[in-house]
Amino acid sequence: MEVYLLILGDHLPDPRTGRAPSEPERVRAVVEQAVVAEQAGFTGVAVGEHHFTRYIISAPELLLATIAARTSTLRLSTGVTLLAHHDPVRVAEEVATLDVLSGGRAELIVARGVSKETDVAFGIAPSDLRPRFHEHLMLLLKLLREENVTWRGTFRSPLESVTTTPRPIQRPHPTLWVGSGSAASAAFAAELGLPLMLPSTLRDPRVYADVVAGYRRDHPGRVALPSHVYVAEYGARDHWRPYLEAYAAFASPWRGDGGRIDIDALMEGAAICGDPGEVADRLNAQQKLLGLDAHLVLIDIGGLPQDDVLAAIRLFGEKVIPRLTG
Amino acid sequence: MEVYLLILGDHLPDPRTGRAPSEPERVRAVVEQAVVAEQAGFTGVAVGEHHFTRYIISAPELLLATIAARTSTLRLSTGVTLLAHHDPVRVAEEVATLDVLSGGRAELIVARGVSKETDVAFGIAPSDLRPRFHEHLMLLLKLLREENVTWRGTFRSPLESVTTTPRPIQRPHPTLWVGSGSAASAAFAAELGLPLMLPSTLRDPRVYADVVAGYRRDHPGRVALPSHVYVAEYGARDHWRPYLEAYAAFASPWRGDGGRIDIDALMEGAAICGDPGEVADRLNAQQKLLGLDAHLVLIDIGGLPQDDVLAAIRLFGEKVIPRLTG
Repeated sequence: MEVYLLILGDHLPDPRTGRAPSEPERVRAVVEQAVVAEQAGFTGVAVGEHHFTRYIISAPELLLATIAARTSTLRLSTGVTLLAHHDPVRVAEEVATLDVLSGGRAELIVARGVSKETDVAFGIAPSDLRPRFHEHLMLLLKLLREENVTWRGTFRSPLESVTTTPRPIQRPHPTLWVGSGSAASAAFAAELGLPLMLPSTLRDPRVYADVVAGYRRDHPGRVALPSHVYVAEYGARDHWRPYLEAYAAFASPWRGDGGRIDIDALMEGAAICGDPGEVADRLNAQQKLLGLDAHLVLIDIGGLPQDDVLAAIRLFGEKVIPRLTG
Repeated sequence: MEVYLLILGDHLPDPRTGRAPSEPERVRAVVEQAVVAEQAGFTGVAVGEHHFTRYIISAPELLLATIAARTSTLRLSTGVTLLAHHDPVRVAEEVATLDVLSGGRAELIVARGVSKETDVAFGIAPSDLRPRFHEHLMLLLKLLREENVTWRGTFRSPLESVTTTPRPIQRPHPTLWVGSGSAASAAFAAELGLPLMLPSTLRDPRVYADVVAGYRRDHPGRVALPSHVYVAEYGARDHWRPYLEAYAAFASPWRGDGGRIDIDALMEGAAICGDPGEVADRLNAQQKLLGLDAHLVLIDIGGLPQDDVLAAIRLFGEKVIPRLTG
């Protein structure tokens, strides 16, 4: 079972104390978490991209390049790259550069995104979001796979016999996960033979059973699911609850169903906390439900202090990873 | 006197042996050069951006983020960022992220670029290049200086009350050099109060005397000049000549006057080599001529082996930097 540490970089005050680290402290804390995750036995890290909000990481590829210098085996992924909002030429160049800098450890999770404000700021009409995403993904694959690309599309200026440099180390290309919980995007991922990353929602993973079944019908590819996780030997649930509440209140406009989040239901569903045995059991149940190939574990949320995050990463590596099945 | 190591990342075979490192070796060699430059006492490093050519570094900000993790005092600059070809929102996010990751060491040199092929591939009409550059630079400054930006322009979709994150550490913002040898761009830099970086051409620096005089008339800002440099205790000229020839043949379409380059004249002008005393004397003469505040030293060109590059960086730090005036 592959396990990635998912980091989205929300910058919220600690609900217990009201204190928040500075932005630079927060960004450097993310780098530190990745370093500790490698030591703890995680497969990889996935760092999210957001714009103009209290998720303060906008250029995850730079954090990953810094993490590359401080790690040696950790897979380095975005989580997610907003591909409809990027020039795929730049994305191809960046992922190849990260691949080269890290000795072949780069990955991307590409997705359409969920923020209307971001779409507006990047000048993307709602009706263009899906066709842009599809066109950009096709071009990105072509640029990574081929050394002499001539291309013409709808949303980007044409290319005539270009080779992006450097070339990636991984062949045919660094893993591109398609991040989506929709049947349409899952079908597109299946058609392209790309692995599927389900969304980091606050919703019960059972809602994705049909999407995964549809994806698997067309393509026997890998599937990964993000989960909110907190693990401690004692008192995990009581300690974590205010942080999860703070995060859910912050994130629900993008990730929930719009309404108020039922924290108790959440803690029985998408949010997993407890001692190592309980956390492993519940992740294993998810694995069975959806036939997962990888877990994405989102620990750092809602102002949880860095010491608690690092302790949970270490304990997860020591006592949860060895119990994971699949 | 400030001294930056300028690295453009041309990937050419060694003209003496015909051998070239692999692309990954080449990219990692650049990172290593920066680490050695800090040890040798350089002020900073400036890593160039190119696309679709044998200058293979397309995403210098990722190399700088890796270098950030392995250095502690070195200034980290692009050299140059093709600002007309970028979304200034992304550039603001990236330079701020690099600033945060490096503890306040980020800089940018922004310029219009010299490659028609790159302009075409990024869909930029020749007549739009200058107005795009100006608009993007104004927006970039606004995004770095202000936390609540509402903006409307010609080339990018409008912004309504956005704050790019993270905010840079350096206030009011990381240094932005304007890279240009034209009187018009120098006047624009002067108007904005930004320092001026002359081009890394193969031309004699005396051609910039009028541009610098014009810039200084309007604004008492800092001026920097790139030079091709090779330093060795013995035989520098004979050893370096084939590498400079190979590089000049490669780079002249973009950087020269179009015609054949006279290597002997070049070695008396823009290209400086010799023992530490001679190199220092000639750099000091340039400093006097143009009243320079910083030198950019371009050592790694034309397939020069990495061992020679590193030895020259070390010797430059040990015996040239202490002799520099200005």
